Amino acid sequence: MTTKSIGVALVGCGTVGGAAAKIIVNDAREIAARTGVELQLLHIVDRSYAHADELGITEAARTSDLAVVCADPKVDVVLELVGGLTVAKSIIEQALRAGKHVVTANKALLAHHGAELLALAAENGVCIGFEASCGGGIPIIRALYDGLAANRIDAIYGIVNGTCNYILTEMIHHGADYPTALAQAQKAGLAEADPSLDVSGVDSAHKIAIMASLAFGVDVEFDSIPVAGIDSLDLKDVLYASRLGYAVKLLAIADRRENGVMLHVRPAFIAKEHPLAWVSGPFNAVSVYGSTTGHTMYYGRGAGGRPTGSAVVADIVSLGLGAIPAVYRGSPALRGATKKAQVIPVSELESRYYLRIMVADSPGALADITGIFGRYGISIASVHQDEPADSDNGGSAAPVPVVVVLHTAREQDVLAARDKINALESTAEVSSVIAIVDEHEEDLS
Amino acid sequence: MTTKSIGVALVGCGTVGGAAAKIIVNDAREIAARTGVELQLLHIVDRSYAHADELGITEAARTSDLAVVCADPKVDVVLELVGGLTVAKSIIEQALRAGKHVVTANKALLAHHGAELLALAAENGVCIGFEASCGGGIPIIRALYDGLAANRIDAIYGIVNGTCNYILTEMIHHGADYPTALAQAQKAGLAEADPSLDVSGVDSAHKIAIMASLAFGVDVEFDSIPVAGIDSLDLKDVLYASRLGYAVKLLAIADRRENGVMLHVRPAFIAKEHPLAWVSGPFNAVSVYGSTTGHTMYYGRGAGGRPTGSAVVADIVSLGLGAIPAVYRGSPALRGATKKAQVIPVSELESRYYLRIMVADSPGALADITGIFGRYGISIASVHQDEPADSDNGGSAAPVPVVVVLHTAREQDVLAARDKINALESTAEVSSVIAIVDEHEEDLS
Repeated sequence: MTTKSIGVALVGCGTVGGAAAKIIVNDAREIAARTGVELQLLHIVDRSYAHADELGITEAARTSDLAVVCADPKVDVVLELVGGLTVAKSIIEQALRAGKHVVTANKALLAHHGAELLALAAENGVCIGFEASCGGGIPIIRALYDGLAANRIDAIYGIVNGTCNYILTEMIHHGADYPTALAQAQKAGLAEADPSLDVSGVDSAHKIAIMASLAFGVDVEFDSIPVAGIDSLDLKDVLYASRLGYAVKLLAIADRRENGVMLHVRPAFIAKEHPLAWVSGPFNAVSVYGSTTGHTMYYGRGAGGRPTGSAVVADIVSLGLGAIPAVYRGSPALRGATKKAQVIPVSELESRYYLRIMVADSPGALADITGIFGRYGISIASVHQDEPADSDNGGSAAPVPVVVVLHTAREQDVLAARDKINALESTAEVSSVIAIVDEHEEDLS
Repeated sequence: MTTKSIGVALVGCGTVGGAAAKIIVNDAREIAARTGVELQLLHIVDRSYAHADELGITEAARTSDLAVVCADPKVDVVLELVGGLTVAKSIIEQALRAGKHVVTANKALLAHHGAELLALAAENGVCIGFEASCGGGIPIIRALYDGLAANRIDAIYGIVNGTCNYILTEMIHHGADYPTALAQAQKAGLAEADPSLDVSGVDSAHKIAIMASLAFGVDVEFDSIPVAGIDSLDLKDVLYASRLGYAVKLLAIADRRENGVMLHVRPAFIAKEHPLAWVSGPFNAVSVYGSTTGHTMYYGRGAGGRPTGSAVVADIVSLGLGAIPAVYRGSPALRGATKKAQVIPVSELESRYYLRIMVADSPGALADITGIFGRYGISIASVHQDEPADSDNGGSAAPVPVVVVLHTAREQDVLAARDKINALESTAEVSSVIAIVDEHEEDLS
């Protein structure tokens, strides 16, 4: 058994950086015994060392000058754990140009500039490890480039934001409305004071852009992904979902079609039989549909210092062993040598849909609505209207909620029908249109 | 981008071998474009070519002589897909000695002789890929040696036999008794005519032996694993489990303790909140508890030609790229250089337990039973006794089922208490003792 020594420089000693540093320092001997790679933390680059001090990490040299790190021949891998779209990019570029491998958890940066950075790495004979960018401690990136290597990947459905999943779980299981559930998530330390990047769906979109680029071997333009978050989700729809046998999840979806790819992020209904419906609290899970394995799913903690640090360290080990370089060598997607994705607009999505419509309690109102669906060639699977709880003696005729489930239809037709319904003379108003995601087809013959 | 050509010889063209051959032949171009490895099926070794003919695989040379394959310098990888404990071992040994990498799905062989064969491979400068031996198309072996490289793995809970899980799902969801559910599985092609290897738990034990050896870096002696199957499972217990908030699953469990490892296979209760409880039909799933990621779970089809073929081909690709050789180089577990596992007997298991006891409907009977538990220091968490459905007017005093749930206790104490209860003068008979598996502890601080 041979042991190889790998020199590591950490840039950004925050939550993830600190956790990665702690694993490297405390578990180096155990990891070396298991894998044959001895990790050595040589430098920490940051503006403040308060967190490093707090963690008792004193082994590494401290510098605010990245050039020192890049000039040190003992440094094999630079960890970019600063995050964000500005300084992080130049840190990575500088390290790659100096011939250092890079490991990063920066999903925003990779979603916007992944192909460019991977190409720069390949040019310089090094690699960028990015397991930590998607799904925290879940080894989903490796599944896509290694474990499922025999598969043409057809679709990815991901629950990849723990904050949103925690909030939705509170809504589903405890009937909390969105503001209450968000406050609860903030109290539990699972949502930032400004939660907009998470709850808007943008963070999930970053991750599906990265996974789809790798899985489909295309360069996904981030701004082409339509994104809807959970911030405007009504508890009423969450409760109707449960009654109808579904769970509402924020899904990041990538689907390969014959003539391109379709990507979107949105709250959707998913049947309670689907394993994604079971994923509760801050956990993440990614379902991958491959041409030879069919459906596989990967589940775990999608955030937090130690889980994300675990992914960072796995990449360092793999770079040290030479496994990542071996795999990246032949893969266009991992060398940034892919073409721009042909994006199919989500208006062409074919799906089942749930609509909640406030309908005037007057004769003919429902007939107007069903008539509109009929004119768009959309079949209705079911209609649910409860008796008003408080059935007063006529007169007021307050609108009542009617829930309509549609058979498979095109999104653009459903939205056009919605607009027509809203234009009906004050008889009806569509409160929600939510796609119902069915199990993806498998052909294992 | 460079493309490497990899010569493959297939030994055993049955269900898995045929599926692997079909992927290699039909998808070679796509796989090469994605990974940089061009797969070439050079030889098929078998006694009959009926299945190869049926699949239209005519490209490869056909021979019944393994020596021809071993002498061909174009062959890089030999696929052993014959299975079983006899001829398969000598096929693998011959290939390794000829300097060929081996890929196998043979869990029985690896469970019994894994360390010996991995050591022989290392001696000859080659590797054995065995992703296909556990969990079919789920890349669980890679998760253990690569994706979770930063983790000390503390426990594995696996549902790793699709036949058993299908049968249990029929029992849980449709109230079928064991013989009916087994017949249903046989009809659906999910159980062999002789299902004993599956339903006895032996197949699951093979898989947990392989996973535990790799995860814990020890050589697990297969015969040290206590195995109980689902073949004596009573539908009554399955239904009680549901009432109490649990699902009955055949679990293969490996647990690292300070002074050794504990392994066992048995039907157990698992709380409906645990993701393993959701795994239905022929699907498999493996929960892994690591020191830095905490709980991750891997889900998918655990059997069948194409899923298992997918794992076989992933190993060939990884061997072709050099990634498997790079990872194996530094890993004692993957080079067969581990010590015999210190096995902790399962009698020392500490767990909660469910017992169903037939109790004479007479005064004092329940007091006798609870008294016995008390004398063993075992606390009772709950007692459930239904009113007899058919409460006839005294006289007969037929025994009634009493369900007792115990707080955490040692297995040997629970079994000793059971023996004492059974020895009570005809007042009670313990019908079932089933462990309740709780969520494993996580410490991510």
